[in-house]
Amino acid sequence: MSKLKLIIGNKNYSSWSLRPWIALKVKGVDFTEELSPFDFAAGNPKFASFSPSKKVPVLQDGKLTVWESLAILEYLAERFPAAGLWPEDQADRAWARSIAHEMHGGFSALRSQCPMNMRREVGAIPISEATGRDVKRIVNIWRECLEHSGGPFLFGSFTNADAMFAPVVNRISVYALSDDPVVLRYSEAMTALPAWQEWEAAGKAEPWTVEEEEV
Amino acid sequence: MSKLKLIIGNKNYSSWSLRPWIALKVKGVDFTEELSPFDFAAGNPKFASFSPSKKVPVLQDGKLTVWESLAILEYLAERFPAAGLWPEDQADRAWARSIAHEMHGGFSALRSQCPMNMRREVGAIPISEATGRDVKRIVNIWRECLEHSGGPFLFGSFTNADAMFAPVVNRISVYALSDDPVVLRYSEAMTALPAWQEWEAAGKAEPWTVEEEEV
Repeated sequence: MSKLKLIIGNKNYSSWSLRPWIALKVKGVDFTEELSPFDFAAGNPKFASFSPSKKVPVLQDGKLTVWESLAILEYLAERFPAAGLWPEDQADRAWARSIAHEMHGGFSALRSQCPMNMRREVGAIPISEATGRDVKRIVNIWRECLEHSGGPFLFGSFTNADAMFAPVVNRISVYALSDDPVVLRYSEAMTALPAWQEWEAAGKAEPWTVEEEEV
Repeated sequence: MSKLKLIIGNKNYSSWSLRPWIALKVKGVDFTEELSPFDFAAGNPKFASFSPSKKVPVLQDGKLTVWESLAILEYLAERFPAAGLWPEDQADRAWARSIAHEMHGGFSALRSQCPMNMRREVGAIPISEATGRDVKRIVNIWRECLEHSGGPFLFGSFTNADAMFAPVVNRISVYALSDDPVVLRYSEAMTALPAWQEWEAAGKAEPWTVEEEEV
């Protein structure tokens, strides 16, 4: 088998890149990573050379290119069936996919108002009603899953559902969006992962900044 | 096995509902459908009684509830493995998922400017640059897939990737967004499906209208 290569954006900002990256790391898959920094001003012209959608992340497996975070996570679940990237139980798996897809296509208020930012100092900002509703829904999702599974991750051990929600742990923390015990418990499990700590430290150490950072 | 039930929104407007509905119909799965019309003014309060995300569509399989179109399509692919809802070849399957997810999370300009509308009379509108880029990318996706597979659908026979792009066939047609031969060829295959025709006729016959219709 060829060695996987994951092409990602800035670790400080690219929440979509974090998702497959952390899944690969947590499951101990050997892969090469290549960081292609955002060029916000020019619209990331370099991305077109490796990404059909001109976005990151992209997974390369030999001659095969897979794009879109959750499509990559599905591919990894197929390629490494023993890694348990989806819950084994069919009903749990359907649930995990439902919330993973809800994260992929939804929560646009939270995503635009509170972008992931590993080096942002913790501090509240005035949030819109829509962002408040997004946070409330996410806390409910986490609560229901953790009550059902017993934790520490949404379906017990780490799955693609956790990979999808990983960036939200940063968002809720740095914008001080919730102090619900469920959030604290889940965030503790996520940030205790060596993979999480490695990504966060790398993001904090990156030289690039964007004007939007102070939003 | 219990009989599946799919809860959908208006057939004239609900592009997300069309996706799993058409997959079920094309593959000949026996299911019950329940239409819960949008209540745009009130924010669809009824949806909360059956949908964890307060959105449609929702699939009920006995006690199990699955939401989000693409999560439902993944569930159907697992539950009916012989139906071929994903391409059999692993590389094709990864490709199909990549474009299905690109559709799910992307093309926001096209989606907001040109909503699906089965009874809209064909006619061009002034489109934004972003919508133009979305259309161009979609035409490229269809071209690459059809060249690779030979058609008539994106990966030969109908798969979840086609289910995801089905509403776009309506959009490109009624807003006269492209006369590329690839679009004509793919639209012809899609609209020749009895399932497509059944949905379109039902959408046209619905009594509900919204103010946005004339956009």
